[in-house]
Amino acid sequence: MSILLNNNGYDNQTWYQALTTAFPDKAVHIYDQIVNLDETAHEIEYAVVWNHPNGDLQRYPNLKGILLLGAGTEHIDADDNIPHVPIVRLIDPEVIKDMGLYVLYWVMDQHRLYDTYRVQQQQAKWHRHNICQPSAFNVTVLGLGAVGKAVANGLSMNGFSVTGWDAYPQQLNNIACFHSTDQLATAVEQADVLVNCLPLNASTQHFINSDLIEQLPVGAMLINISRGDIIDDDALLSALDNNQLSRAVLDTFSIEPLPSASRYWQHPKVTVTPHMSGATYARSAVRLIADNIRRIENGEQPFPLHQPPTP
Amino acid sequence: MSILLNNNGYDNQTWYQALTTAFPDKAVHIYDQIVNLDETAHEIEYAVVWNHPNGDLQRYPNLKGILLLGAGTEHIDADDNIPHVPIVRLIDPEVIKDMGLYVLYWVMDQHRLYDTYRVQQQQAKWHRHNICQPSAFNVTVLGLGAVGKAVANGLSMNGFSVTGWDAYPQQLNNIACFHSTDQLATAVEQADVLVNCLPLNASTQHFINSDLIEQLPVGAMLINISRGDIIDDDALLSALDNNQLSRAVLDTFSIEPLPSASRYWQHPKVTVTPHMSGATYARSAVRLIADNIRRIENGEQPFPLHQPPTP
Repeated sequence: MSILLNNNGYDNQTWYQALTTAFPDKAVHIYDQIVNLDETAHEIEYAVVWNHPNGDLQRYPNLKGILLLGAGTEHIDADDNIPHVPIVRLIDPEVIKDMGLYVLYWVMDQHRLYDTYRVQQQQAKWHRHNICQPSAFNVTVLGLGAVGKAVANGLSMNGFSVTGWDAYPQQLNNIACFHSTDQLATAVEQADVLVNCLPLNASTQHFINSDLIEQLPVGAMLINISRGDIIDDDALLSALDNNQLSRAVLDTFSIEPLPSASRYWQHPKVTVTPHMSGATYARSAVRLIADNIRRIENGEQPFPLHQPPTP
Repeated sequence: MSILLNNNGYDNQTWYQALTTAFPDKAVHIYDQIVNLDETAHEIEYAVVWNHPNGDLQRYPNLKGILLLGAGTEHIDADDNIPHVPIVRLIDPEVIKDMGLYVLYWVMDQHRLYDTYRVQQQQAKWHRHNICQPSAFNVTVLGLGAVGKAVANGLSMNGFSVTGWDAYPQQLNNIACFHSTDQLATAVEQADVLVNCLPLNASTQHFINSDLIEQLPVGAMLINISRGDIIDDDALLSALDNNQLSRAVLDTFSIEPLPSASRYWQHPKVTVTPHMSGATYARSAVRLIADNIRRIENGEQPFPLHQPPTP
């Protein structure tokens, strides 16, 4: 029995070693280093993959499970030839915590005017700015799945005013939660910062467009830690150019790595980070994946199980 | 009855209005705007002051209380002619929370390598860096008074590994606490970040000197939110220059405003902020001061009461 590993070349060695340590009696094949796929294909029982090429997974006749190396499922959902085996998302609490801290950092960066203080230092200028209390600084979180909930709770725990919105009703302690498109304008109308934690699917493509941006207070900031395609890039760039938005912090993009020609790289109001908001720690993530492989081996149900959309 | 207000010209108008609103039947005199001090002096019953000139407070024969506009007492302690009236520190939970968030921000800035990502953006470079988990990133907090405790608890609550040190034994949940000079080396030997929250007094002057810095792991970062005189500036600058320390984030200095000739302003490894880690919100602070004035008026004890050092 073998494991197919495809993390798109990112940190292959760490993952290879982590899987080999977890399963000393199984061979681990790195996808783009397999010399003769036709010979190896029948050995593969588990595919530990991310952004895997469409159609490839049907080549493994003995496949028993697909273990994604991330929480998003839009790539696997776009593949029309997925074998009928369990598809398991990777939802690592450590990654989710880091995404919460990423958002908290950029919210504090905006609230406390740290960019202004960085510029003042270059000018050797000593000047304090009045700010509002964190409890009067509102952050609206769009999407209250595992990530959105952690982001909202982390901000609230640290004293910020938090509003949540999700397509479906959700409840969080000390956080006003709204749902459905009817309540969207109400959810965002006070947002000093809007944080996108929505999943990417047919109904969230370009969800953050000029209509939604116009509902925000003038000078709001946008943080995107979910998927680039949820944002209408042209609408965002115009809103920044005409000062409707003061700033965007983007960790994720329609095309990754972000092409060097993208206006985002050089835009003075945009912060680009290379999809690092959730740092994946191989050691903690491989434990979750290994536990799920063992569950499938034992005839138990792995989790969190993904239900592919019906075509 | 009148109130003397001296916030060193900082945000005088806000404080004047806040005090006038709290005490509509009392005159509020701004110290450096008093035309005839000899005429006004006998009216003054309460002095709401910060960094007030030495010796001045003995000029008010009817003084009933000194209400400091901050938590530090080193200026009042340096005045040998303080009348025998209650001296009350301002310990505003809102300010303390903000100091905790300030430290959390700079700890995250260091842990997540945000400065590196800022430079990468200028180069349109997409590259993720591996980091350790927050639970493996150690922050040692020196001084576990009200501020140090809040800083330590805030970091711990957000998942960082925290160690505390104080001159006297202290206990905090989930935080290893050390005390006395005997245990100082043990307290700091794992510190990825050292945070100074010590009070300034005779035994803490230049407490952070080359001896202490040498106990830290190579490449540690220093954050100072307490008082500049606790740091030996020459020792800090050499430790930065010879890479013993990777970075210093300084919010407070021996002389404030920091003189434009200071090396700190232009040092590539130093972040200077203008003593803004604890944002004072006049609205919340004035309530605490007003409550203490009312306590003195009613013959009750104000708090937190400061006991000046015996000469």
